[in-house]
Amino acid sequence: MAQPVEKLLLFGATGDLSRRMLIPSLFGLHSDGLLPDQLTITGTARSEYDDAGFRDFAAEALEEFAPADRMTEDNVAAFLERLHYHALDASSQHGYDALAEGLGDISGGLAIFLSTAPWLFGPTIKGLQGAGLATDKVRIGLEKPLGKDLQTSCEINDIVADAFPEERTFRIDHYLGKETVQNILALRFGNSLFEPVWNARGIDNVQITISETVGLEGRAGYYDEVGALRDMVQNHMLQLVSLIAMEPPAHFDGTSIRDEKVKVLRSLRTIAAEDVGHHTVLGQYGAGAVAGKIVRGYDEELEQVSDTETFVALKAHVDNWRWQGVPFYLRTGKRMAERRSEIVIQFKPVPHSIFAERGGMLQPNALVIRLQPEEYVRLLVMAKQPGLDREGIRLREVPLNLSLDTEFAGTQRRIAYERLLLDLIEGDPTLFVRRDEVEAQWAWIDAVREGWKANGVKPKPYSSGSWGPSAAIALTERDGVTWHE
Amino acid sequence: MAQPVEKLLLFGATGDLSRRMLIPSLFGLHSDGLLPDQLTITGTARSEYDDAGFRDFAAEALEEFAPADRMTEDNVAAFLERLHYHALDASSQHGYDALAEGLGDISGGLAIFLSTAPWLFGPTIKGLQGAGLATDKVRIGLEKPLGKDLQTSCEINDIVADAFPEERTFRIDHYLGKETVQNILALRFGNSLFEPVWNARGIDNVQITISETVGLEGRAGYYDEVGALRDMVQNHMLQLVSLIAMEPPAHFDGTSIRDEKVKVLRSLRTIAAEDVGHHTVLGQYGAGAVAGKIVRGYDEELEQVSDTETFVALKAHVDNWRWQGVPFYLRTGKRMAERRSEIVIQFKPVPHSIFAERGGMLQPNALVIRLQPEEYVRLLVMAKQPGLDREGIRLREVPLNLSLDTEFAGTQRRIAYERLLLDLIEGDPTLFVRRDEVEAQWAWIDAVREGWKANGVKPKPYSSGSWGPSAAIALTERDGVTWHE
Repeated sequence: MAQPVEKLLLFGATGDLSRRMLIPSLFGLHSDGLLPDQLTITGTARSEYDDAGFRDFAAEALEEFAPADRMTEDNVAAFLERLHYHALDASSQHGYDALAEGLGDISGGLAIFLSTAPWLFGPTIKGLQGAGLATDKVRIGLEKPLGKDLQTSCEINDIVADAFPEERTFRIDHYLGKETVQNILALRFGNSLFEPVWNARGIDNVQITISETVGLEGRAGYYDEVGALRDMVQNHMLQLVSLIAMEPPAHFDGTSIRDEKVKVLRSLRTIAAEDVGHHTVLGQYGAGAVAGKIVRGYDEELEQVSDTETFVALKAHVDNWRWQGVPFYLRTGKRMAERRSEIVIQFKPVPHSIFAERGGMLQPNALVIRLQPEEYVRLLVMAKQPGLDREGIRLREVPLNLSLDTEFAGTQRRIAYERLLLDLIEGDPTLFVRRDEVEAQWAWIDAVREGWKANGVKPKPYSSGSWGPSAAIALTERDGVTWHE
Repeated sequence: MAQPVEKLLLFGATGDLSRRMLIPSLFGLHSDGLLPDQLTITGTARSEYDDAGFRDFAAEALEEFAPADRMTEDNVAAFLERLHYHALDASSQHGYDALAEGLGDISGGLAIFLSTAPWLFGPTIKGLQGAGLATDKVRIGLEKPLGKDLQTSCEINDIVADAFPEERTFRIDHYLGKETVQNILALRFGNSLFEPVWNARGIDNVQITISETVGLEGRAGYYDEVGALRDMVQNHMLQLVSLIAMEPPAHFDGTSIRDEKVKVLRSLRTIAAEDVGHHTVLGQYGAGAVAGKIVRGYDEELEQVSDTETFVALKAHVDNWRWQGVPFYLRTGKRMAERRSEIVIQFKPVPHSIFAERGGMLQPNALVIRLQPEEYVRLLVMAKQPGLDREGIRLREVPLNLSLDTEFAGTQRRIAYERLLLDLIEGDPTLFVRRDEVEAQWAWIDAVREGWKANGVKPKPYSSGSWGPSAAIALTERDGVTWHE
């Protein structure tokens, strides 16, 4: 196991992610005594702060985003004490030497976290190298987006690899920091009950939904560049697919788990250009109502006409022995009926129902893993409805519930970034995305986009507050499958 | 499907079972409009009641045992209207003709329910035959005990068979009337999830516990004759074993289900005389405390020294492909720590734990089917405890609960006899025990008793309020298995 570092350097320290997530997460870790005692946190960005100014910035972030019960004066003061600031124009090579000087001795280990625009990655890595901040005591965390297609992703990865070998490169997908996502591994590999049916013989289909109710939220420029496929599917959703579909690893470590995940990602069946019409659905939200509020359409919000998809549904396949013939239906979108991140494992029906001739109807079993807004695992099973069965046997689908909120009540809920930042500081790569994974993800996504381009596929309109274009319903219904709702 | 009968004849109508269970059950069915409109219920026993006297007896039984919300004056009056009484000394052949005359025309169907001492079965059947009350329009329900070993059971069955063919003979095991017992079939054959692991590859062991806190309760004479093995294991517990272990039937009907059940009962591995010491444990309660009250020992309660077992634990095996090597641990007793009827399906551990090297401990999955005092099904699974896993991955066993009480709240709870009496009246044999089942049960039980006799095995003392003799703990612990508690 790697050693914890003594210094943390945050690029983009005054940005939105830093304010909402990173600083509150570091504070949470600090409050629980999980940060190395000597750890200093140096923020850097273009803003002309000094240490005191950055500490004020951080204190405001904590006021807004940290849990109130942690906000004792002593605790906050001790945390702010760790913070330093070094203004830097990352795009210019001037200034990195001064940064290195400010950081001082890094022989105790340095972790760098890049939460900046991806076009800054190149200059930043070069600057770090030039200033001696890319030694073997340094590891680097990278926030998405890592490119916009396979080629640009490779370019970024090459730049990083020039300074940091893969084992010291930590690519963040914050979904992997979520408790319920980690629970997929516990459920699959900690229980003997599921594995025998966790394959094409036992599972009919898998559905993954990440629906948002929000629209652009001020990310217009970026979002309109990438669209739903690249913003959500390429990273989070394919990571979920890989965790659901992976073979049992031999060890719980970064090598074993990521070896199995990348095998899944490389087994994703390429959606050929002639199939995009059948296997994908694009949508763009129009005006409508979400949670009782009238909202504008995408074009209007963007203030220009656009072909960017704000919704995408796909039918994917994992071409290996375990999953042959099992569709993975993925859908994600903005301005949808509700906010929900959910995985549904839909098991096959029983091969022969003895209840049918007595009037009993069966629903196939399903395992529902809900990531947002609640966190729960729910197994849907059939049970006999109490009664004398005079009009036939009445069976009902009933949920066996595991609510993480209630079962583990009193356990502190943590931001996904707490886990990931601590793993970065301590050097555990298990929950970070390896280069081969990212590239397998992009390869699959690029083929979809090429198919769209070749066929001139444009997003279909859908009303805000709906579940996307009706074609997304048809995508599963053609297979006799209904989206779980 | 058979036709409902128009007349019901109850032998032992003034007995304890009738008062506590049968009359309240019939009243429940009546209240819900489930009895045929024209159905009359004739009670018979030695007591010198007339119709009015029996109706008073029934009214008192309802006051004590029927749910208050059903006790409207009109409803009770309409029910009592169905009741008639005919005093009869069943042991004498005089009087059956008068009984037949009193019943009148039985061409619309007659169901007879024998809730009498088993030595009365012979004279009763003979009397019924002689009086023309064993026509092909008549079916007969038999309450336990049906014999005290295979030989006497065959004798009784022969006597009954002389008058009633098997398809019109309804042997009652009231456990089969329980909702949760019927739910075993729904769970096993209504869900695709369980069947792939429902065998020796998936299941480590099965435990069935029926523990009572009561002592003799005025049944001293009868109980001291039979003991726990014959009172509970021969019937209820082996029926539960057959439902747990049966192959999937092709139909939900009396033939298919009982064909599969009897195959299990015939596959029970005979416990050889030389093995009784290792595979069985007998106990007899001494003084102690149950639920905070001091209670006397069995001998003292009985007012004589006895070798009868009030507790028995057994390790059984079903010798077929599905269950090879899976122990079925059965235990039942009186004056135990708590009242509980429960089946625990203990699944095998995962073949390889990836969590062990990270400090994570796993418990094997278990399915708990609780029949008494609550009714629930509970699946125990492992989940990751939320947290940052700094001291290793922490996993915890969490229950996925299906509470019949809460999930089906508002559904009326019914006495097991309601279901069985209605099935008898309507002629559905599915939930009754077929002759071949009873005989297979006895054959297995007799071998155990012969082994005890050959080895002079006597019950070991245990304190009232305990879980039986410590040898019962050793019985499973020798196999590395702990009773589920």
